Amino acid sequence: MSTVTTDDHADRADRVPKQDRSRATRQRLLAAAVACLAEHGWSGSTVSVVAERAGVSRGAAQHHFPTREDLFTAAVEYVAEERSGALRALFPEGAAGDRRAVVTALVDLYTGPLFRAALHLWVAASNEEQLRPRVTELEARVGRETHRIAVELLGADETRPGVRETVQGLLDMARGLGLANLLTDDASRRDRVVAQWAALLDGALD
Amino acid sequence: MSTVTTDDHADRADRVPKQDRSRATRQRLLAAAVACLAEHGWSGSTVSVVAERAGVSRGAAQHHFPTREDLFTAAVEYVAEERSGALRALFPEGAAGDRRAVVTALVDLYTGPLFRAALHLWVAASNEEQLRPRVTELEARVGRETHRIAVELLGADETRPGVRETVQGLLDMARGLGLANLLTDDASRRDRVVAQWAALLDGALD
Repeated sequence: MSTVTTDDHADRADRVPKQDRSRATRQRLLAAAVACLAEHGWSGSTVSVVAERAGVSRGAAQHHFPTREDLFTAAVEYVAEERSGALRALFPEGAAGDRRAVVTALVDLYTGPLFRAALHLWVAASNEEQLRPRVTELEARVGRETHRIAVELLGADETRPGVRETVQGLLDMARGLGLANLLTDDASRRDRVVAQWAALLDGALD
Repeated sequence: MSTVTTDDHADRADRVPKQDRSRATRQRLLAAAVACLAEHGWSGSTVSVVAERAGVSRGAAQHHFPTREDLFTAAVEYVAEERSGALRALFPEGAAGDRRAVVTALVDLYTGPLFRAALHLWVAASNEEQLRPRVTELEARVGRETHRIAVELLGADETRPGVRETVQGLLDMARGLGLANLLTDDASRRDRVVAQWAALLDGALD
């Protein structure tokens, strides 16, 4: 009995750091995949390129992600989760009615390298049949989650007619602002648009 | 004198159909470039592929467009002009206060293969240094023109504070709706968002 327990314990002690290492490798690969997709687009983003960037062997990368599609959809899913988490963390006690701050934070989700990586994946998926169903499913899931968070933080009552569509339109606007930021730094125009629409939204939601 | 006139006339008679043929070839190349970009993305769109699709020799294509960048920025510019023209043609007498119809028409500019081609060009330009300055300049020009048309058709008074940003936000939303339509047919959700935002806009502009 005591031998078994000891063995079991030794096994676990050995296993835990291995799992940690494995998780750290996976995270490094995902972060490298996102950076690669944002910088080089789909055509420049292969498993080998990402593995090299992450400092991981190609074999280890393929152990975690057997195909290129596995790697990149996992990467964008990881990003989406990070973004949702970051948004919730900004308002741990709720937004306390500061809708302008919420609109600003929502719009921020759609600028920067994370949105850029997602955009590359969407555009690639529109032409790559292997990628398309997975990215479509992922997008629907991420979209629902973002909508849920937005409704909650804005204190929007979706039982009232038009409120659901108002929030949807706001998220569409945020996506469009992200696209407008792709080629140039659009921050100062964006701030003015956000200020104005946050005011309109306030009127529409109350 | 009479000889010169005759020669001149003969020259012109010969030249005009040649110009027509040349213009027709150019248009065929531009249309093929847009279709190619929408279907295969930047990486699948070369001058040779477009020339073949247009039924034009590679040499003739290069006579019109010496580089791939020339061809694709010209193609997207052509598309942008067609889109603006189509929008103006919808309301030849002005929109007579029907803002919902205007919002619907504006949003329609951002769905379909023409927006898809432009999107591929933007995304490619974000990673291709040769393409980026030209596409950025083109986008700024197209953006100003679309904004001007929107202000006019919506009967928006931009001297009033916030009106300019209201119209800008609407066009950002239209762009975001175009992006949402990339992977799935988003038409029925889009109709509801448009109806709601047209109502918000009506309140904001009056």
